[in-house]
Amino acid sequence: MKAEILTIGDELLRGEIVDSNKAFLAERLLRLEVETRFQTSVCDEPADMRDAFLRARGRAELVLVSGGLGPTRDDLTFEVLAQTFGRELVLHEPSLAAIRAFFARVGREMAENNAKQALLPAGSEVLENPVGTAPGCLLEVPAAEGAGSVLFFCMPGVPRELMKMMDEQVLPRVAARLAAAGRPAGAVRAVLLRTFGLGESNLDQELRDVARDEGVVLGFRTAFPDNYLRPVARGATPEEAEARLAKVCDAIRERLGVLVYGTGDETMEQVVGALLAARGLRLATAESCTGGLVGARVTAVPGSSRYYQGGVVAYSNDAKQALLDVPGDLLARHGAVSAEVARAMAEGARRRFGAELAVSTTGISGPDGGTPEKPVGLVYVGFASPAGSAAYELLFPLDRERHRALTTQVALDCVRRFLLGEEPVATRWSAKR
Amino acid sequence: MKAEILTIGDELLRGEIVDSNKAFLAERLLRLEVETRFQTSVCDEPADMRDAFLRARGRAELVLVSGGLGPTRDDLTFEVLAQTFGRELVLHEPSLAAIRAFFARVGREMAENNAKQALLPAGSEVLENPVGTAPGCLLEVPAAEGAGSVLFFCMPGVPRELMKMMDEQVLPRVAARLAAAGRPAGAVRAVLLRTFGLGESNLDQELRDVARDEGVVLGFRTAFPDNYLRPVARGATPEEAEARLAKVCDAIRERLGVLVYGTGDETMEQVVGALLAARGLRLATAESCTGGLVGARVTAVPGSSRYYQGGVVAYSNDAKQALLDVPGDLLARHGAVSAEVARAMAEGARRRFGAELAVSTTGISGPDGGTPEKPVGLVYVGFASPAGSAAYELLFPLDRERHRALTTQVALDCVRRFLLGEEPVATRWSAKR
Repeated sequence: MKAEILTIGDELLRGEIVDSNKAFLAERLLRLEVETRFQTSVCDEPADMRDAFLRARGRAELVLVSGGLGPTRDDLTFEVLAQTFGRELVLHEPSLAAIRAFFARVGREMAENNAKQALLPAGSEVLENPVGTAPGCLLEVPAAEGAGSVLFFCMPGVPRELMKMMDEQVLPRVAARLAAAGRPAGAVRAVLLRTFGLGESNLDQELRDVARDEGVVLGFRTAFPDNYLRPVARGATPEEAEARLAKVCDAIRERLGVLVYGTGDETMEQVVGALLAARGLRLATAESCTGGLVGARVTAVPGSSRYYQGGVVAYSNDAKQALLDVPGDLLARHGAVSAEVARAMAEGARRRFGAELAVSTTGISGPDGGTPEKPVGLVYVGFASPAGSAAYELLFPLDRERHRALTTQVALDCVRRFLLGEEPVATRWSAKR
Repeated sequence: MKAEILTIGDELLRGEIVDSNKAFLAERLLRLEVETRFQTSVCDEPADMRDAFLRARGRAELVLVSGGLGPTRDDLTFEVLAQTFGRELVLHEPSLAAIRAFFARVGREMAENNAKQALLPAGSEVLENPVGTAPGCLLEVPAAEGAGSVLFFCMPGVPRELMKMMDEQVLPRVAARLAAAGRPAGAVRAVLLRTFGLGESNLDQELRDVARDEGVVLGFRTAFPDNYLRPVARGATPEEAEARLAKVCDAIRERLGVLVYGTGDETMEQVVGALLAARGLRLATAESCTGGLVGARVTAVPGSSRYYQGGVVAYSNDAKQALLDVPGDLLARHGAVSAEVARAMAEGARRRFGAELAVSTTGISGPDGGTPEKPVGLVYVGFASPAGSAAYELLFPLDRERHRALTTQVALDCVRRFLLGEEPVATRWSAKR
């Protein structure tokens, strides 16, 4: 089954919005081993939309359409789809009722133009949208040439609504069609390995003799500040593909050790949280240059209150003294950006919050504030545990946003590595103290 | 001049990565009034890349290619581009020297395979990459039919490197070509207005008699938790387009008032920071459910140390007492998620950090932790100033991530609205106390 993903919206072709739906849809199709062969975007012009619908019918058997289902004047997907394939637009009463119920549930008045979202192409199957106002639809039309038909699934452009509709309404229907048609032979299995602490080209060199087996391809991807590895294994049977994948994953893990921190959607903060919870330890944070990012990442995980006590964003020197007990003479002697202050911050947070572990950050994220002795990019990560405290000097010559993001990841990784009994900071970052 | 954007990488068609480059490139081209007519993605297969290059040459005059310039085995753009148009690959010595210098600068050893990034198609113009290892190139090839030629600009897939190369190397060359060819008649002017506190369909209704003028189109876009408006004005001359744009912007601002908080790339934290700096006031934060997000947003702005003192992430009740002086009996009587505690947190932060203003958050972001009286989604935003303190009860029936993001934006908006002498919370959120 050849698939095309067609996203609609002026905002896409004008570049006002990043189209994350294409990636989501392609990834989901791949789970059913459906390959996305074409990705197209058109604007809200009926003529362009019509052309795209007709072209898609001519070259794909499955067309996933996203966008143009909203209540505003530039939302025209159903209207143009119906016209293109000679259908009427008909009011779908249950959808109108669902839209009304949606507004009642969130305590807002329904705007008049939301009603047009319930006008669907005649003969289409409605796809419910429990988290938004726009229903989707499945329209099956005869193929342009030969026998068979083409499936057009229309989904809202709002990613959250699209995701739910794709997973709960579209994929089961696609899977049913595939099952009915008889799946193609062979199987694909893939996994994403998340690494932190080694650059992309060094990873490639490190693994140059890995994944050279028949049927295995190893992909690399930078997702700052991480680098991802994606081994993809094919086999004649699911078992063969799985065995090949397991073999290459084992080889990668053996080579990279602690540099692999997670798989799939697993984030660094989830890994750290799971380790803290498993060991019954609590964490506190003391942040200067990261300004709350470490705490925000830790608390992004549901249930983090089990192991996260809290933190201080000590942006001013006064705050470092008053809330973290950093001695004034330490600040005067070494400056706020120093190993000594990083250690004192971690120790202070550990004590103040009554936590077993604490991590701290203090640095110069820039663009201003650097000196010849302490240049922009310099940062110290401090760590305190019942065994004592330490600080690590790092230099990241990056812009402010990336400096803060990388520092945050190093701080989280420092906690993870401590809990695993490993070196606290990846050697790549050339820890000095 | 018709443009095509062609992005290359298995990771795109497998949906492993969201392709933000397309939006960036299209937006930048639009600034030169070059319309992107085609957006295509292909994987790292030489045959597919070759087809895409040839197809692009057949239908566009300007082709922006992104991706496939890295050091790894699946980076093949230069190689395939050279083959497709009958060129050799030649070593560009200055680029090799630049790559070596790059590694020396960041204090890392150059991996051997980085050298292949300096192999460029013969006859191409090199585009320097001062922030990464991969140089880009401009290859001009004869058009498939008729006279003229097609410009292929190849850029790295890493967004930060691509952005700099596009702005500093590609756009000036495109502008020079356009100037040489004589620009098309007419002018387009557009602006992005950022609003917070009104839903998309209500915005559309509120503005239904606005932007009905000839030559003006009003676009709507949800960028959670904001809604953006994008009026686009066309005129026979730049002056006419500008006058039309100014007129519609005035009308929108008159209708929406404080709901419009910024324009273009301006973020809520930048607006809040500029207001604080202008008034010489300092801010502190006290966060529970947002876990540091408010501080992280405030400190994302360079120079925020002028007006941001710091904050406490008081995730546990102990921390609320010990670091923000929230009375224990208040916590016992009303619970941590209450208007009383939100006020006490803001007051405590204001006092502890010696700031004029403080904002606080305490809520249940879920998915667990709700009760019949205090359901998941309930949140209180507290605010303290020299004039006193207050708390606002809000109910956001959203997932954890969106709940935290929306609460953070409400907290920042609360500070902005105070500084502008407006109601502290948008009426949409139905403030209760």
